[in-house]
Amino acid sequence: MPPPTYVFRYGHRANRDHRISTHVGLVARAFGAFGMYYCGDRDEKLEEKIKDVVERWGGSFEVYYVKSWKSFVEKWRGKVVHLTMYGIPLPDVIDKIRRLKKPILVFVGGQKVPGEIYELADYNVSVTLQPHSEVAALAVFLDRLYKGKMLKKAHFENAKIRIIPQEKGKKIVVTK
Amino acid sequence: MPPPTYVFRYGHRANRDHRISTHVGLVARAFGAFGMYYCGDRDEKLEEKIKDVVERWGGSFEVYYVKSWKSFVEKWRGKVVHLTMYGIPLPDVIDKIRRLKKPILVFVGGQKVPGEIYELADYNVSVTLQPHSEVAALAVFLDRLYKGKMLKKAHFENAKIRIIPQEKGKKIVVTK
Repeated sequence: MPPPTYVFRYGHRANRDHRISTHVGLVARAFGAFGMYYCGDRDEKLEEKIKDVVERWGGSFEVYYVKSWKSFVEKWRGKVVHLTMYGIPLPDVIDKIRRLKKPILVFVGGQKVPGEIYELADYNVSVTLQPHSEVAALAVFLDRLYKGKMLKKAHFENAKIRIIPQEKGKKIVVTK
Repeated sequence: MPPPTYVFRYGHRANRDHRISTHVGLVARAFGAFGMYYCGDRDEKLEEKIKDVVERWGGSFEVYYVKSWKSFVEKWRGKVVHLTMYGIPLPDVIDKIRRLKKPILVFVGGQKVPGEIYELADYNVSVTLQPHSEVAALAVFLDRLYKGKMLKKAHFENAKIRIIPQEKGKKIVVTK
């Protein structure tokens, strides 16, 4: 089992990034992270949206707002993995990261992350060497970190809604 | 090698979905799909954005607008994989899909896909049984389909920009 993993979403802009950051948070939860920190604009709608998913779909994923990303990252009592297309390809480092003994902070930016993060990070990791999406990079990273175990997880603890996989159509079990 | 894979992005709304659909297109390209079809609002900015990435980062990925998703899917000369959290877990079907001999159309929706797609699809596949992101679902699906080979691909054909992976910082090679 890899150590507890948290996500840091850098530089959230409430108007422009609302949906992308929501996807980042939901991906973090669905793929096994324990929580998401974010900086930039405080966005209560973002926090509400994710809380609402946790309330219905279970688990204990939490979202926290952070004022200063830098002092947060510097004080992190664990290792920092920065996802960037300029970093070392995922397959070359994932086994080493999985064996870490301390909590992992997965740092994902949008367009412009500050150059300092490359130095502050213990690992700069690329998920393909092409421009695409922080949402996708995070999902693939966590999927590989947990060796795919979230793909078949039936449900989270205290879930009110559960899906029963179907070849056609939808089957949902709702618990009051 | 799996058969050629294309992505279908359902129900694009130019205002609301511009960034998410751009991420879908860039993920499709970066993770090895040949092109993206989309329906909903025609969005020239979306098309330009992706063309611009192809122009600079190489390859021959293309974006096509489709008026009627249904007749398009019905006429598709290959197999249709619909990514939906209600479907069969990815690990249970990916090997079968990888062995298909005909082009694959990976259908991704946003919120509300029409119920008919569950019947029209040859495979309804879930990428976790949790709500998260079509961008993430597509990335993880393609990553597994191509067994991770895109993660270390150095560059696409005719790339003007190439990244040389670094432990710290950025190294880019630009060809005129």
